[in-house]
Amino acid sequence: MQQAAARVLRGARTPQVLSPPVRTPQVLSPPVRTLPVRARSAPAGSAPLGLLYERHGEPAAVVQLKDLEVPKLGDCDVHVKMLAAPINPADINMIQGTYPLLSPLPAVGGNEGVGEVLEAGRRVTALKPGDWVIPADAGLGTWRTQGVFPEKMLLKVPSDISVLCAATLSVNPCTAFRVLADFESLVPGDSVIQNAANSGVGQAVIQIARASGIKTINVVRDRPDLPKLVERLMALGADHVITEEMLRKPEMKDIFKSIPRPRLALNCVGGKSTTEMLRHLQPKGTMVTYGGMAKQPVMVPVSAFIFRDVRLRGFWMTQWRKDHVQGMALWSLMICETPTMLSMS
Amino acid sequence: MQQAAARVLRGARTPQVLSPPVRTPQVLSPPVRTLPVRARSAPAGSAPLGLLYERHGEPAAVVQLKDLEVPKLGDCDVHVKMLAAPINPADINMIQGTYPLLSPLPAVGGNEGVGEVLEAGRRVTALKPGDWVIPADAGLGTWRTQGVFPEKMLLKVPSDISVLCAATLSVNPCTAFRVLADFESLVPGDSVIQNAANSGVGQAVIQIARASGIKTINVVRDRPDLPKLVERLMALGADHVITEEMLRKPEMKDIFKSIPRPRLALNCVGGKSTTEMLRHLQPKGTMVTYGGMAKQPVMVPVSAFIFRDVRLRGFWMTQWRKDHVQGMALWSLMICETPTMLSMS
Repeated sequence: MQQAAARVLRGARTPQVLSPPVRTPQVLSPPVRTLPVRARSAPAGSAPLGLLYERHGEPAAVVQLKDLEVPKLGDCDVHVKMLAAPINPADINMIQGTYPLLSPLPAVGGNEGVGEVLEAGRRVTALKPGDWVIPADAGLGTWRTQGVFPEKMLLKVPSDISVLCAATLSVNPCTAFRVLADFESLVPGDSVIQNAANSGVGQAVIQIARASGIKTINVVRDRPDLPKLVERLMALGADHVITEEMLRKPEMKDIFKSIPRPRLALNCVGGKSTTEMLRHLQPKGTMVTYGGMAKQPVMVPVSAFIFRDVRLRGFWMTQWRKDHVQGMALWSLMICETPTMLSMS
Repeated sequence: MQQAAARVLRGARTPQVLSPPVRTPQVLSPPVRTLPVRARSAPAGSAPLGLLYERHGEPAAVVQLKDLEVPKLGDCDVHVKMLAAPINPADINMIQGTYPLLSPLPAVGGNEGVGEVLEAGRRVTALKPGDWVIPADAGLGTWRTQGVFPEKMLLKVPSDISVLCAATLSVNPCTAFRVLADFESLVPGDSVIQNAANSGVGQAVIQIARASGIKTINVVRDRPDLPKLVERLMALGADHVITEEMLRKPEMKDIFKSIPRPRLALNCVGGKSTTEMLRHLQPKGTMVTYGGMAKQPVMVPVSAFIFRDVRLRGFWMTQWRKDHVQGMALWSLMICETPTMLSMS
């Protein structure tokens, strides 16, 4: 986890910055009773540490590694030791203050990760020491070594999967699961086209689609080590891996000799790449936008709407969870099913 | 009708030109046995005349007023005297050869209009002399003084409505009817926002919405005689008429003090105007594109898809009719119901 944390501070990863989305961001309820004590230059011993920000700004400027006070365990609380936590683009946007969902300040960064239960309060029923848990919702502040959280803020996950898989299960693979399931009724033999195919969601789409008998056409940006990337995505189960330039070429027709034109397109880029991808969608097909890495709008010729009846939708995992708060069983089921599909491929 | 025909030849109306839509346009079956005889400089007597084109191109260059031979009446045919026929943007695009649906050449222009039955063949059951009829589908070639058509290519319409209303009933008002009915389940008190509000579809939307208890926010381009246009649309039943510039102003909020934000946006323009209109749509609302007067693509920030879950769809009346060929009763019902709603306002 500390490697990941260090990367935040260095700003090593290009975040997915979305256009300013809503005027008034929603501020989350304070997730845990976290009290920063003093700044530290390096972790030491087993003292609880966290990557904390007291104001919004660029992560390298505002995030600091600090001692955290772990509050006393309440009856309904669980004491968790964090095992791993990723850096997602949304984490960066939350620190910058540009995300439509913000944590009250001061806040510990990170929304995703896996921890191990060290101790459970007297009235905790579903969790026991040794269980692996992930956040049930955004805003937990996972970039910390340990924490005390209410039981209802955690979800148990299988502990026979890898730590890295468990730590990155709730955002990207679940997004992949839902965008494949919720917009078109795909059956084995159908195809899906996606850009940013080597992203977290993209790789999960490849694996879940393969496990479901769905063919994938995967668009990536050209790069010096393209053959290596193609090989890696094919090993995950990709049927076709192509570059953005290829989308404009007549050779695209060859792909559709062996598989049908896609009924579903998944867009994490925006701009020109998305317009080109859309051209290959079947009439009445759906394109789902879940990200905007190119920082450009989605552009669609009116003729695609009128004469090809394409349908454009969007997806946000956080909103899905909010809309399905009564269906927590569905969420838990997805959490348990997704790793199976990821490992099947 | 001849006034309208003259306008085609002069190219007096700016056509709605859509981006090149599909690579291979669908060529319609020959609609009627129309044989051009010779070019004429002016209509004379009661000889059948038609506005005919033998090749695709700009209407002023390729459309000619010619004598037509009216074939002998078959048992299942109907002899029709045309009463009125409009010029729709799609008619122009068909002559230009840029529409996804083309008539076999030579062709008589015009897809919409109303005629009166002069004579019906022995086996014609649903039509009799004196009935008013409109084309059941695109491609009839309505820019003519008379014609003989198979009964199944015609639909009876009420003859107690105005000739102009009957002649323009099947494209624009029916598009308005369907876009209001098919994408969102609107209930009285809901609102709709539309651009090109003074177009044929736009005016029908205002009237049908008013007859259904739906509020309308109508966007038009600024112009010297704006107050006159506003007055005309308000007289039709519009709740609010605003300019494109107004869409960007904070004063828009005042509108939403008295009516809810729209769940449906109707787009006939594209480009910037459409992006601005989309900003006012409710989360999870739908924008339906049925035209592209600005000749610019629809541009949508990815955040609108992800964080506001807006849904983008398209509509084409011709495709709807094709998809509902088994539901001709529905089509006939709409044809009979729409004038009532138009006259109610």
